[in-house]
Amino acid sequence: MLFDPFKSHFLFLILSLSLCVSQTLALNSVPEPDASLTYLWPLPSEFTSGNRTLSVDPDLSLAVAGIGGNSAIVRAAFDRYRAIIFKHTSGISIFSRFTGRSSVYDISKLKIIVNSDNEELQLGVDESYTLFVSKNDGKSITGEATIEANTVYGALRGLETFSQLCSFDYGTKSVQVYKAPWYIRDKPRFAFRGLLLDTSRHYFPIDVIKQIIESMSYAKLNVFHWHIIDEEAFPLEVPAYPKLWKGSYTKWERYTVEDAYEIVNFAKVRGINVMAEIDVPGHAESWGTGYPNLWPSTSCREPLDVTKNFTFDVISGILTDMRKIFPFELFHLGGDEVNTDCWSTTPHVKQWLQDRNMTAKDAYKYFVLKAQEIAISKNWTPVNWEETFNTFAENLNPRTVVHNWLGAGVCPKAVAKGFKCIFSNQGFWYLDHLDVPWNEVYTAEPLEGINDSSKQELVLGGEVCMWGETADTSDVQQTIWPRAAAAAERMWSRRDAISTGNITLTALPRLHYFRCLLNRRGVQAAPVTNKYARGPPTGAGSCYEQ
Amino acid sequence: MLFDPFKSHFLFLILSLSLCVSQTLALNSVPEPDASLTYLWPLPSEFTSGNRTLSVDPDLSLAVAGIGGNSAIVRAAFDRYRAIIFKHTSGISIFSRFTGRSSVYDISKLKIIVNSDNEELQLGVDESYTLFVSKNDGKSITGEATIEANTVYGALRGLETFSQLCSFDYGTKSVQVYKAPWYIRDKPRFAFRGLLLDTSRHYFPIDVIKQIIESMSYAKLNVFHWHIIDEEAFPLEVPAYPKLWKGSYTKWERYTVEDAYEIVNFAKVRGINVMAEIDVPGHAESWGTGYPNLWPSTSCREPLDVTKNFTFDVISGILTDMRKIFPFELFHLGGDEVNTDCWSTTPHVKQWLQDRNMTAKDAYKYFVLKAQEIAISKNWTPVNWEETFNTFAENLNPRTVVHNWLGAGVCPKAVAKGFKCIFSNQGFWYLDHLDVPWNEVYTAEPLEGINDSSKQELVLGGEVCMWGETADTSDVQQTIWPRAAAAAERMWSRRDAISTGNITLTALPRLHYFRCLLNRRGVQAAPVTNKYARGPPTGAGSCYEQ
Repeated sequence: MLFDPFKSHFLFLILSLSLCVSQTLALNSVPEPDASLTYLWPLPSEFTSGNRTLSVDPDLSLAVAGIGGNSAIVRAAFDRYRAIIFKHTSGISIFSRFTGRSSVYDISKLKIIVNSDNEELQLGVDESYTLFVSKNDGKSITGEATIEANTVYGALRGLETFSQLCSFDYGTKSVQVYKAPWYIRDKPRFAFRGLLLDTSRHYFPIDVIKQIIESMSYAKLNVFHWHIIDEEAFPLEVPAYPKLWKGSYTKWERYTVEDAYEIVNFAKVRGINVMAEIDVPGHAESWGTGYPNLWPSTSCREPLDVTKNFTFDVISGILTDMRKIFPFELFHLGGDEVNTDCWSTTPHVKQWLQDRNMTAKDAYKYFVLKAQEIAISKNWTPVNWEETFNTFAENLNPRTVVHNWLGAGVCPKAVAKGFKCIFSNQGFWYLDHLDVPWNEVYTAEPLEGINDSSKQELVLGGEVCMWGETADTSDVQQTIWPRAAAAAERMWSRRDAISTGNITLTALPRLHYFRCLLNRRGVQAAPVTNKYARGPPTGAGSCYEQ
Repeated sequence: MLFDPFKSHFLFLILSLSLCVSQTLALNSVPEPDASLTYLWPLPSEFTSGNRTLSVDPDLSLAVAGIGGNSAIVRAAFDRYRAIIFKHTSGISIFSRFTGRSSVYDISKLKIIVNSDNEELQLGVDESYTLFVSKNDGKSITGEATIEANTVYGALRGLETFSQLCSFDYGTKSVQVYKAPWYIRDKPRFAFRGLLLDTSRHYFPIDVIKQIIESMSYAKLNVFHWHIIDEEAFPLEVPAYPKLWKGSYTKWERYTVEDAYEIVNFAKVRGINVMAEIDVPGHAESWGTGYPNLWPSTSCREPLDVTKNFTFDVISGILTDMRKIFPFELFHLGGDEVNTDCWSTTPHVKQWLQDRNMTAKDAYKYFVLKAQEIAISKNWTPVNWEETFNTFAENLNPRTVVHNWLGAGVCPKAVAKGFKCIFSNQGFWYLDHLDVPWNEVYTAEPLEGINDSSKQELVLGGEVCMWGETADTSDVQQTIWPRAAAAAERMWSRRDAISTGNITLTALPRLHYFRCLLNRRGVQAAPVTNKYARGPPTGAGSCYEQ
């Protein structure tokens, strides 16, 4: 049975503490932060806080419990977060005034309880956790800081929240937790909280992909949608068809299967699934660099040649190889922006269509459904961009997840027909749209227009999309952040808690704070309120105001 | 005695090998790189290469020799570079076709010989090294890969060069050295190769400063000029005057003395000195937030009040505290852009000037010279921005290093008068000037207009300056890189080797390559040929072309 601090008699004591904290945050030219706000991002679903300040031991130790507590994932995460929390090491002070500090700390141990040893990471994995932080007075039945979760992935989310409670105090030169004691009971609103990265328009080195995945974990995003391949480049190794990655820009802009495997594991231990995509039949010109037979003709190269068994053999081969790398149950088959002119004008394809009494549109459907069958045969749930649903909803496999992007109103239609849906309305959640300000990202709502709760459950969540035409290693992180964080809170936090009031007062100061937190962790998050995303600051000033 | 491969009889064998390599670099849409170029940045001063490809053991081991070889700095650097060289780990392959690879490698050991155990890092420290990479045939008197240097800092430069020789080959999935055997004998042209970072206009978290310092080492830059304080903010803790950092933007945008100390040590083990600056008497308004007496008046806050002993007591206190942190012999006292209006209009200052029959300009000189005296009394060599030289050269302490910034022709004048000089002509080497393209950075020459070799020796080197008005964590690295690398080669490599021929053919492809190397190492270097520095790529494409 889970220990439940919310039901315990401690709760009444906690609730009786004032929520209005008098803690002074002495600042120079920058306005005082609103102490009534909770500087956690995304906002936990339930929490109470107090008015005490607790110190955290720089030698904070880990204690684990529960059948899943003794997990390598938990231990590695604790080490990562300890490095984050204790960035400022006192070391051996060269200034005598800083020696002889108190060695008595309020919190010297973090207890992590994990109630299951099942470490499978799939859609809907239990990410809930409770976090309790108080001074140990010797009477409490919990530890000084305790995270309890049903899975290691819930524990990871709790660790992130704990790290955000910890602040380095420059006055005492120690890490402190303000507004303690804290009782937090938290869980995500949506199971699928994604970020798409396009590694075809620009190649991203594996270290950069890891940086992005690491930063996703700070905002509790949990799906890395890897748009690996597109018409411009085919960077991934496919052992079954070893010439495919001849479609890479250069022989140095490639991913080996081992690279991909490493990325999947790097993501997994951060509680992030990798959803791979091969976008067919459009957006696939680069496939033909290695296998020109995949093109309708050398002068008309897209969509993939629908007439040949070879085309589907290659898709099957790719999916067989990918299945060994990507354990996530969802696989993205693209299906967007298919211009069938090549099919209508290339003689052998035209003939093939005539022989079967098919239009080009019929062939598009034929192709998508055949690709779906291949994916399903490999035990994958297919995801398709919304055009497939918009064009032939009645033929789509009922397991299909419809991925919205073109605009509003698609998820309502999809769930009305019983399909699952992912929300990525390009007007708000396409990060390459640089003119969309943080507040429009923040208020975009995946459940907009869906009122029936049984239908709401079909919305898996949403995804922000970082298309790569003008994003490369030099600018990708500041194009992603901080706006991806605005979507991350929308997808994690309770809708009622973040949808009322004036967000300029309730969310903006918190987002500023989170952006500066990202910066402190070495993530190149851009100013929050610049006119165009990833724009430079307009002048000198504090991170907390820009 | 140093082993000297250039004088050995091996040299003749090496030179007889063709320099024109037939190695094919199969590419897709991108032109073949020019195989006659040497893709090392900055270009070593002397080298020969061959036409063999050698494989490098993923378990590459370190062997040290010489009285300085058993150094923690060398061992830590070897570990860092091994992580860089072997980013692609094969791990346990999930694809059977990738098992059973050859376990015989041409290079399985890197030998590092350091001939001195003096690890003091000062201006002019010996950074020379030789690097020899060949297949061990059992007959060679050197190892398979050998770095020999007089100091650990030379060994660090050699390690960087070795890492640039190592490429991951996606075909064989192993690290290879092309064009072996390599004989490299290298040393810098200038002793001072700096980068300025301004942490007053924007605060940079310590992790970000470390990222910048780490990236500097890749281009063999060796001085981190820390422009800590300016009129906007005073982020550094000064124990002697603990209210000074009240001038920080917020209480979270600060550096403790321990932070500063850690940065100095982080830089030192990468062979990089930290030159601290306090810019007086202008650019110092933020000092008065904690101590308003430093302002001439609350309504006229800059320059610092020249009339009070307290002003110089504070400067002395800061320098005493800083001396414990910054061991580098150079200390920057600023002295630029001093607008003395406050002195002329504030009654008590005006009176003070009249009493002494001094003009405001006299007071500027008085202030700068007094600050110089304080710095010199603490065993520092003062550096001043060029205005001090331009205004009262005859009064400057002869040890003064003149720091050029306003334009051309200053270093020639300074060295003619016997002063040392640092070149930072803002028209070329101010990185915040976003309209200066890579080639103008590259061709700017610190010795321009100085023909007498005894005078040339007074030019310590140069520095690129990253002023912070529109640079923060989100955009600083892509504003610095790749243009800082252009200056880095100018300062490291032989002038004759990089000043002849068409640099679009000889340098640009190499700079593209180095930019992509930075990207692979996780550094956000911007496209080389974009119209404005740090601009995004204009469209999809290869890193090697943008």
